[in-house]
Amino acid sequence: METTAAAAGVRERYNTLAERLQEITHLEGISALLSWDMEVIMPHGSGDARGKQMSALAGVLHEKKTSAELGRLITALADQISASSELNDYERANVRDAKRDYDQEVLVPKELAQKVAELENRGHSVWAEARKQSDFASFAPVLREWVDLRKKICALVEPTKPAYDVCIDRFERGMTAQRFDEIFSEVKAGLVPLIADIARAQAEKPELNFDRSFLHSEAFSTVTQDQLGTRISKDLGFSTECGRLDVSTHPFTGGPHPTDVRITTRYSPNLLEGLMGTIHETGHALYEQGRNAEHIDLPVGRALGMGIHESQSLFYERMVGQSRHFWKYAWPVACEFFPQLAKEHSVEEMYRALNVVTPSLIRVDADEVTYSLHVILRFEIERDLFNGNLAIEDLPKVWNEKMKSYLGVVPPSDKEGVLQDVHWSAGLYGYFPSYSLGAMYACQFYNKAKEEIPELEEQLAQGQFEPIKAWLGKKIHQKGSLLPSGDELCQAVTGEPLNPAHFLRYLRSKYSEIYQLPSQ
Amino acid sequence: METTAAAAGVRERYNTLAERLQEITHLEGISALLSWDMEVIMPHGSGDARGKQMSALAGVLHEKKTSAELGRLITALADQISASSELNDYERANVRDAKRDYDQEVLVPKELAQKVAELENRGHSVWAEARKQSDFASFAPVLREWVDLRKKICALVEPTKPAYDVCIDRFERGMTAQRFDEIFSEVKAGLVPLIADIARAQAEKPELNFDRSFLHSEAFSTVTQDQLGTRISKDLGFSTECGRLDVSTHPFTGGPHPTDVRITTRYSPNLLEGLMGTIHETGHALYEQGRNAEHIDLPVGRALGMGIHESQSLFYERMVGQSRHFWKYAWPVACEFFPQLAKEHSVEEMYRALNVVTPSLIRVDADEVTYSLHVILRFEIERDLFNGNLAIEDLPKVWNEKMKSYLGVVPPSDKEGVLQDVHWSAGLYGYFPSYSLGAMYACQFYNKAKEEIPELEEQLAQGQFEPIKAWLGKKIHQKGSLLPSGDELCQAVTGEPLNPAHFLRYLRSKYSEIYQLPSQ
Repeated sequence: METTAAAAGVRERYNTLAERLQEITHLEGISALLSWDMEVIMPHGSGDARGKQMSALAGVLHEKKTSAELGRLITALADQISASSELNDYERANVRDAKRDYDQEVLVPKELAQKVAELENRGHSVWAEARKQSDFASFAPVLREWVDLRKKICALVEPTKPAYDVCIDRFERGMTAQRFDEIFSEVKAGLVPLIADIARAQAEKPELNFDRSFLHSEAFSTVTQDQLGTRISKDLGFSTECGRLDVSTHPFTGGPHPTDVRITTRYSPNLLEGLMGTIHETGHALYEQGRNAEHIDLPVGRALGMGIHESQSLFYERMVGQSRHFWKYAWPVACEFFPQLAKEHSVEEMYRALNVVTPSLIRVDADEVTYSLHVILRFEIERDLFNGNLAIEDLPKVWNEKMKSYLGVVPPSDKEGVLQDVHWSAGLYGYFPSYSLGAMYACQFYNKAKEEIPELEEQLAQGQFEPIKAWLGKKIHQKGSLLPSGDELCQAVTGEPLNPAHFLRYLRSKYSEIYQLPSQ
Repeated sequence: METTAAAAGVRERYNTLAERLQEITHLEGISALLSWDMEVIMPHGSGDARGKQMSALAGVLHEKKTSAELGRLITALADQISASSELNDYERANVRDAKRDYDQEVLVPKELAQKVAELENRGHSVWAEARKQSDFASFAPVLREWVDLRKKICALVEPTKPAYDVCIDRFERGMTAQRFDEIFSEVKAGLVPLIADIARAQAEKPELNFDRSFLHSEAFSTVTQDQLGTRISKDLGFSTECGRLDVSTHPFTGGPHPTDVRITTRYSPNLLEGLMGTIHETGHALYEQGRNAEHIDLPVGRALGMGIHESQSLFYERMVGQSRHFWKYAWPVACEFFPQLAKEHSVEEMYRALNVVTPSLIRVDADEVTYSLHVILRFEIERDLFNGNLAIEDLPKVWNEKMKSYLGVVPPSDKEGVLQDVHWSAGLYGYFPSYSLGAMYACQFYNKAKEEIPELEEQLAQGQFEPIKAWLGKKIHQKGSLLPSGDELCQAVTGEPLNPAHFLRYLRSKYSEIYQLPSQ
């Protein structure tokens, strides 16, 4: 009888905890909607009011997330579950993540949480204006405020760890600057000779300087680009019944709920910018829309970390969207919307145009070979900013030096350099490495998917995207945060933790064919 | 010294109160954004999640609005201000309205407040579907739930008053069903003979059946209608820097803040539907955008009641937008966007087409002469629903009987009858009378404005809308809720409280000219 009573206590406590966590999720959904709205459709004159609204809601969320009742529930359950078989694996994971969230939140006072919300809002306005004017000096104070604020918060959350490691852990649990140093050294060692080989081939064989000009035209109307992007996004599996596609300055995936996932893109005369952006965000959106309905609105139902999220967008953008197989399906579709393409060009030209390697200035426009060097540069700058080895006023200079040294190009202005990304204005430090991690996970997942779905590439060529969506759904989306880290998920899906060798092999093999490189 | 200490106490308390009230305003702004988003752009599949989000926020708002600390601040200040000269008129009004809001809110338990939010959301979905299918039976349970819920709430708020009077007081402070009975009797007594005179004139003189068919064409593209509506709305003074214009099933003015006022309209082949809808909502929006910046986010800065709000929309829609003067400006503008209009028609034809009087089925399409009878019908039904003299299942029958008796027309289906309006699905009972009140206030304000700006109508004809916007701003918008009722504001602006005689005289005079009625 005593065991039953104790078990009933666990179940009852767990149910109360779940209700509290769901309420927090609903309020966080509202916060996400406020952000989406601000980025996409809010009238310009309302920035100040929106800042106050977001700050008020952040205050409420902080109160809810740090309530004494929540703390008691979590502590009691965390103590009980190891001795109890009442809760299943998903429920235990909810308690585990609720405890992690609570511990992190309770150490940050309400005033700091509100300061974060306020600075996110103000930071965005200042950055947008500074970028427009290419005026780093006007953005520098925000950057300084952010670094100070993050350091203050990190010192409260994990006083014994370096602040930047605490930042990284927010996005990639268990990761550290040192581990990134190791991974990125291996990546650098593989990429530098590959990029050199490609450059040599391009210099020696003029026919390897593939034409991309046919993908750039004022005749690609925004309206038709939007129709094409929507068509392909829906073909890939994006549900407009539970999502939207809009336009914003910087493309992102947001929205208040897995039943209301909002992706954005931006259109320019470059057909690839909007389309590949849409495919990228579609990958994020499929993860969000694919979340486990049984555990919706609870921590275990959430997507797992930023690296895994990015693996899903890059899976679709690069592994699928930049492959020959995909373009066997996509070329006729693109020609339907832009018949001028079919007249003078071919799917093979499209494939080559899509996979041109050129060291360039803008991260989001970078090809998949040079991309990681953009990330490594940002990682090194963040690391040095946080450990005090880099002064904020030197940032543009250091940025430009690293660009020259890694990629051989120098931004003509800060607009195309240090001011290009939104992240630092939003307080996202330790976030950039996830982009590169995502690319490596995506590659490792793709290799495994090919093993388990031997007809995968034939399906992509025929526009049959349901099987791969289902595979990712089962292996990754539905798993949510059950496993506590990307490495553990990667182990479960592929049989080994993250291993950059897959990524480097993939790039070497793919680009050896495209650029006729001598076998090593 | 004692006086100074007491005064400092008042000031300090007042400042704390103001902070609490501003926080509530910010959270209410978020709530308004959630509603706007749901009506205008939310993906269909997210209704359930949005309901939970709105319910969670309603719970938070209820906690904030009923917090013991807020109650103590309000009680202390309400006791002190009569004996203190520390606070100015606006600050006293803030305390007065904070007390009113608090008293009303504290009497409604959190569960009921959440139930309201939940039923607003569910009610809207059920109503939208029921209206589509013209299926009153599927909507009836929601109606029953609403009437029961409102009665329960009214009994808690003002147990000694009839429930319907409590409902009315929410929108028109101090008004009662009995006072509406008196007003509406006078209005009926004036309108019935006027409508009869017009019908007789139409029957006797075929040339008085003015052509409106030229305003209905598939050639009026939605995109161009939108451009025209935006142009005229901006000319009238609507700021897109602090607002948006979108499309929704039922036009409304919403948005989260006076710096982010969102109006919606709907387009059809009938040019007037979208355009006059936009002008109507522009009137609401100018009130919102014109709120007193000094008292923003505080109760006294809010718009005063529904009748006065409607007076602003109807001022622009009817007193301005249906006048000959306005169309001297607007006709060439409309012809710019739709050149086909200029070829065969004239501004005088436009004026007559705009002011055709025809008893019809749909309230929002009704002309200004018959409109009030639509309102009186709804008022009588609500009154009888609440006092138990009308069973919900009889509603369609009673609706149709009253339509026949007041307007001589009977809806062929409930879609064009009892299901046409969104209000009852949203729990808005006692709201419809404000529409008619608004028309009467608008007329009384317009007469006064003409007295004080002798060149007003010449300005309208030249598209100079700044002077009238400034006049309304100074007399009404900036006043906010300083005066506690519409009648008191009306007295301050025009020198007398609401008097239906102005309205009846205006209609008799205007339509005597249009329909060549014999002088009485």
